[in-house]
Amino acid sequence: METHTRYNRIAGADVGRLEALSDGIFAFAATVLVLDFHTPDAADIHTEAQLLGALAASAPRLMTWLLSLMTLGIFWVGQQTGLNQLERSNRDLTWLHFVFLAIVTVLPFSTRLLADFFTYRTAFVIYWANIFLLGAGLYATWVYAEWAKLIRKDAHGEISQAIRRRIVIAQSLYGVGAVVGLFNVTLGITLIILIQLNFAIAPRLPILSRL
Amino acid sequence: METHTRYNRIAGADVGRLEALSDGIFAFAATVLVLDFHTPDAADIHTEAQLLGALAASAPRLMTWLLSLMTLGIFWVGQQTGLNQLERSNRDLTWLHFVFLAIVTVLPFSTRLLADFFTYRTAFVIYWANIFLLGAGLYATWVYAEWAKLIRKDAHGEISQAIRRRIVIAQSLYGVGAVVGLFNVTLGITLIILIQLNFAIAPRLPILSRL
Amino acid sequence: METHTRYNRIAGADVGRLEALSDGIFAFAATVLVLDFHTPDAADIHTEAQLLGALAASAPRLMTWLLSLMTLGIFWVGQQTGLNQLERSNRDLTWLHFVFLAIVTVLPFSTRLLADFFTYRTAFVIYWANIFLLGAGLYATWVYAEWAKLIRKDAHGEISQAIRRRIVIAQSLYGVGAVVGLFNVTLGITLIILIQLNFAIAPRLPILSRL
Amino acid sequence: METHTRYNRIAGADVGRLEALSDGIFAFAATVLVLDFHTPDAADIHTEAQLLGALAASAPRLMTWLLSLMTLGIFWVGQQTGLNQLERSNRDLTWLHFVFLAIVTVLPFSTRLLADFFTYRTAFVIYWANIFLLGAGLYATWVYAEWAKLIRKDAHGEISQAIRRRIVIAQSLYGVGAVVGLFNVTLGITLIILIQLNFAIAPRLPILSRL
Repeated sequence: METHTRYNRIAGADVGRLEALSDGIFAFAATVLVLDFHTPDAADIHTEAQLLGALAASAPRLMTWLLSLMTLGIFWVGQQTGLNQLERSNRDLTWLHFVFLAIVTVLPFSTRLLADFFTYRTAFVIYWANIFLLGAGLYATWVYAEWAKLIRKDAHGEISQAIRRRIVIAQSLYGVGAVVGLFNVTLGITLIILIQLNFAIAPRLPILSRL
Repeated sequence: METHTRYNRIAGADVGRLEALSDGIFAFAATVLVLDFHTPDAADIHTEAQLLGALAASAPRLMTWLLSLMTLGIFWVGQQTGLNQLERSNRDLTWLHFVFLAIVTVLPFSTRLLADFFTYRTAFVIYWANIFLLGAGLYATWVYAEWAKLIRKDAHGEISQAIRRRIVIAQSLYGVGAVVGLFNVTLGITLIILIQLNFAIAPRLPILSRL
Repeated sequence: METHTRYNRIAGADVGRLEALSDGIFAFAATVLVLDFHTPDAADIHTEAQLLGALAASAPRLMTWLLSLMTLGIFWVGQQTGLNQLERSNRDLTWLHFVFLAIVTVLPFSTRLLADFFTYRTAFVIYWANIFLLGAGLYATWVYAEWAKLIRKDAHGEISQAIRRRIVIAQSLYGVGAVVGLFNVTLGITLIILIQLNFAIAPRLPILSRL
Repeated sequence: METHTRYNRIAGADVGRLEALSDGIFAFAATVLVLDFHTPDAADIHTEAQLLGALAASAPRLMTWLLSLMTLGIFWVGQQTGLNQLERSNRDLTWLHFVFLAIVTVLPFSTRLLADFFTYRTAFVIYWANIFLLGAGLYATWVYAEWAKLIRKDAHGEISQAIRRRIVIAQSLYGVGAVVGLFNVTLGITLIILIQLNFAIAPRLPILSRL
């Protein structure tokens, strides 16, 4: 027990390393998303019209790409906001963030699945589950960091409540989108995109910003 | 509205994280460009001459690679120049830069499309649009940063004008290249490469540097 | 001899660069792991049940993914713990860490091999060898850093012993898992996963934490 | 001319960004090297012996991998050594380093080519050319940095000479390896590997360290 405690006290205390790993993982995930844009097979294309047609046919992939880009952006900003409130880290918080980042690395797969099976409930539910796990992971890192007194003193209280509320409200809205998607996948995706746009560009419409 | 404001005030204020994400995305994009260099199929090659021939056949890809490398370099230096003038960031500027970076991640796709369909206007116009969006995105980050008073005091005035003029002149020249490319794709690409060389190595020829 | 000494004295002294390279390599390795999750071929899927079935069929890959994620996390935290004790680096230590990182880059390959040939002793032994080399590499960086007096004064003694003991105990346990795996691969993998869970989440069970 | 000068004076002055981009590119290049290790086709493998045999058959790829890892390590340490001597950067030096990094991104391609066509002079010469260009690029960054007075005062004189001599000697030795390789590719590769080992592990043999 002693040995463990001693090792764990010196391990994973570096917020800077966590940030660097996070930036690397978000950067690759964003770039990997585009690897799924395939160029048409040159053998099939003989005219400008055919090339335009082939590109237009993969337009649905553009929609899932935008969706996942916004997801990455929202959770990158979200994680950064939390990390900025930290006074220091410890081994357990580092592992919680590592789990969060692991969920980020899965997003390119969920995106590809949704793009390949756009009308399938299974693909939609898996995509939603990925967003849900991102939210749950981020929430866990914050709750733990506050509980373990790793955050700055002035981040307790109002700031902490704002961060928690933000995640809970967003996930509740995504949940509504998920339920709708069980009945109509396209409508569910559209809803989730609108919710994300709200959180990304934060329109000043009273009814939405009051959320 | 209050909640939003409060959350947004603490989110995305970290220029260092933005830089780290940018470096990751530019680094990955540059490396991904080379993934499109395929080695010849070993089953087809039996002599040195055949290997040389197969490599020579993929020379056009070398041209689009150089083109995109310069594009990445120009916009990496350009974004860095802007970020260096920042005193701090905020959530909206972070999102604007995120959009700019998303356009960077698309470049390997546009490059592949142009290499695969070198003589097609459609591929050329998409490639040009990518460069145009990079410029528009970068311009937007700067205009917003200045408007929101996020830049250093001494960066207002002359420096700001130099940055804006630089982007506008470059995009105007690319636009000329684009119009020429509508009539003759090869000539259009050549023009854009020459324009980029001008901005990358900044020759001291009076006529060009006066631009 | 003089020339060498002089060059080597100024080379590789930067711990920050080593950390940045490490974060990049770990981030990329974690993202590459997910590239092996292939979506089912759309031509084969016509119903939700078929999609679910196809995804369930690739569940073993999920197990090797979790295994490798934990491996990456454990050694990322482990290397970071060692680097944090450094006062400075030198060229030889930089090269030792570079070798360690090279072993990290191989992990996605070992993982794919194990996933593709889950019941094969050969694949299992190669995977275990990868973990063993990671441990040996990390141990070598620490022993050298201490011998070359590159670590902080207060890291000698207890902290150094904790770091060494940690690696030796973990590798001994993995070794037991490897021997068991020679007789029953599935049992061996399960053992290694349990050992990793112990080190990752560090349960406070007396019998395990006393290890 | 004025505009240019003004823009260029504020562009690319940040050594930290250059380092971060470099670490990203070296990290991805090292990881991409391993993407060329393909697992055998599961349909062809039915026994442990077949799996071992299939893996053994790709052993030559292991040799080119080691070769390129050492190349990456040598030039990563080399570039770092140069960057550490900088007092500041400027736009032209940033572009020179960008060109150097572009040559780094090509290494995974040259490596794949050499592995696929191990006995072909063409592949060997291209690989050697890649190493040569890395050396020439690094040399150019140093000569320019010294000429433009961007390096620290105490780095002039002895340190500068050590850095230049190092590159020139290494490239001369690689050149010998290249000439030998024109007659016997395997012997040429072996020579280059030995030269790299000398520079990587820097043996204290008088005859070699006097080089």
